[in-house]
Amino acid sequence: MKTSPDRVAQAAVLAMLIELSSTPKPGNVDRGHDFEEIKFHHFLISAVSAYPIFRDAAMGSEPTGALIRRAVSSWRGWGLSQNTHFGTVTLLVPLAVAAGRGGDLKVEVAGVLEETTVEDAVEFYASFAIAGARVAEVEALSLKDPHAADCVRSEGRTLLDLMRLSSGHDLVAREWSTGFKRSFELAETLARRVYDLGLNDGVVMTYLEALAHVPDSLVASKFGPKSAEEASRRAGSILGFEAGETLRLAGELDREFVEEDINPGSTADLIGAALFIALVGGSILRSEE
Amino acid sequence: MKTSPDRVAQAAVLAMLIELSSTPKPGNVDRGHDFEEIKFHHFLISAVSAYPIFRDAAMGSEPTGALIRRAVSSWRGWGLSQNTHFGTVTLLVPLAVAAGRGGDLKVEVAGVLEETTVEDAVEFYASFAIAGARVAEVEALSLKDPHAADCVRSEGRTLLDLMRLSSGHDLVAREWSTGFKRSFELAETLARRVYDLGLNDGVVMTYLEALAHVPDSLVASKFGPKSAEEASRRAGSILGFEAGETLRLAGELDREFVEEDINPGSTADLIGAALFIALVGGSILRSEE
Repeated sequence: MKTSPDRVAQAAVLAMLIELSSTPKPGNVDRGHDFEEIKFHHFLISAVSAYPIFRDAAMGSEPTGALIRRAVSSWRGWGLSQNTHFGTVTLLVPLAVAAGRGGDLKVEVAGVLEETTVEDAVEFYASFAIAGARVAEVEALSLKDPHAADCVRSEGRTLLDLMRLSSGHDLVAREWSTGFKRSFELAETLARRVYDLGLNDGVVMTYLEALAHVPDSLVASKFGPKSAEEASRRAGSILGFEAGETLRLAGELDREFVEEDINPGSTADLIGAALFIALVGGSILRSEE
Repeated sequence: MKTSPDRVAQAAVLAMLIELSSTPKPGNVDRGHDFEEIKFHHFLISAVSAYPIFRDAAMGSEPTGALIRRAVSSWRGWGLSQNTHFGTVTLLVPLAVAAGRGGDLKVEVAGVLEETTVEDAVEFYASFAIAGARVAEVEALSLKDPHAADCVRSEGRTLLDLMRLSSGHDLVAREWSTGFKRSFELAETLARRVYDLGLNDGVVMTYLEALAHVPDSLVASKFGPKSAEEASRRAGSILGFEAGETLRLAGELDREFVEEDINPGSTADLIGAALFIALVGGSILRSEE
């Protein structure tokens, strides 16, 4: 069944807001605490101001790269200069385009990624500059290289090609290069956890499991892969208890991560994508009608 | 200058979300706590799902009563049956219609209210039933009377007429019957407080001042006017200190109000309206461009 453009946009914005507000989510802004420079309401602004871009995405009227650039530009209109939702938007835009097409979401999103062009890649570089996003610095033509946009054009690389180049060290790029494999898996985990524990605790539990399972690439880009592995090990160490105890320990781990400036933001991006898939698919917050 | 329909919708949704998340807001759901039946994410859902209705309001394509009914119906689509934002929506819809017209907001909203018809009144009664809202029970033809819709038609009462009948005992109706006098005043207070204290603390301080100044009609409808006056006196008693101390005491008052089930929801509705006016007018979160 085809999902209306407004419903797709609502699913995308709700995914961002539910991810944001689920608490305690160790190391990320949530209902419990802000960061010094980035506050809860900054995430509200970036989520809400991207609404029309998700709606347009679902209408299929614009290329993916241009939509991502419009989304990261949109929040400037409400005075926001911080980078809040860049990674999440990079995941949600192709998912929103796919949801607007009406077929099987997994099949459709694979098609959306395959259709990306050199122009999408160039637009994505422009988005980077606007968002001031942080990524791991690894190979030539990595997403961070300022001269890469020229190379992209001369070498004819599409946005999907670029994502494949960065997939080894960036969780968001890895989702692009695998047809959102992990996001779809996490959406299934999420639906089960939400069914058992309710929305807030289900999201937190899924986040902890995701972080324990795969080291976070934003943490790796700040502190190196060893620190990212250690953060995942610590997340894993509070799993396996009764849910209430895990959530209590999550509060403690949150205080430790904030103290140490460990911010698993890429894992939060993936939870946003998983929430979108679950919302559009009706496995959480299903209408009673 | 005319505000685009999408920007009007964003201002409305952001007003609801910023009001919701400002903390500690004694007696209302905020970042600090949920209620047993109504949780933080329920307010996220009702805010986001009303986006297209605010956009349509700003486009001037539908009558005010029908828009209010659509707004309170919209959140059912995401499985929400609780009444969260009924009062706020009743204030924000005419403001959104007015903002879409492009003149002076105060003048335009007065016109929007004057233009309401008997059909708007009938639609509003339908909204009440959908939202399951609580209002004070006072005179005949009060907003709660189930037979009033028939009387409204036979007597030719407009929605503004109805609001005037309820303005003595309902803060939302009073805004309608005074051309949003207090909302505009609170928007000015809000801009000053946000300038001095930042967004979160400025909203909380404005909320406390509003509550101290006028007893809350939702509290009155639950516990009677004496209890509402007492709640306002207690809010007033924590003002006049240095801001940090007032905010600390607000945390204590919040715990007391929640314990006593004192929920000044009408005051929160007014803060939502004041936030919208300030956002659309650019006195808070102004774009740097």
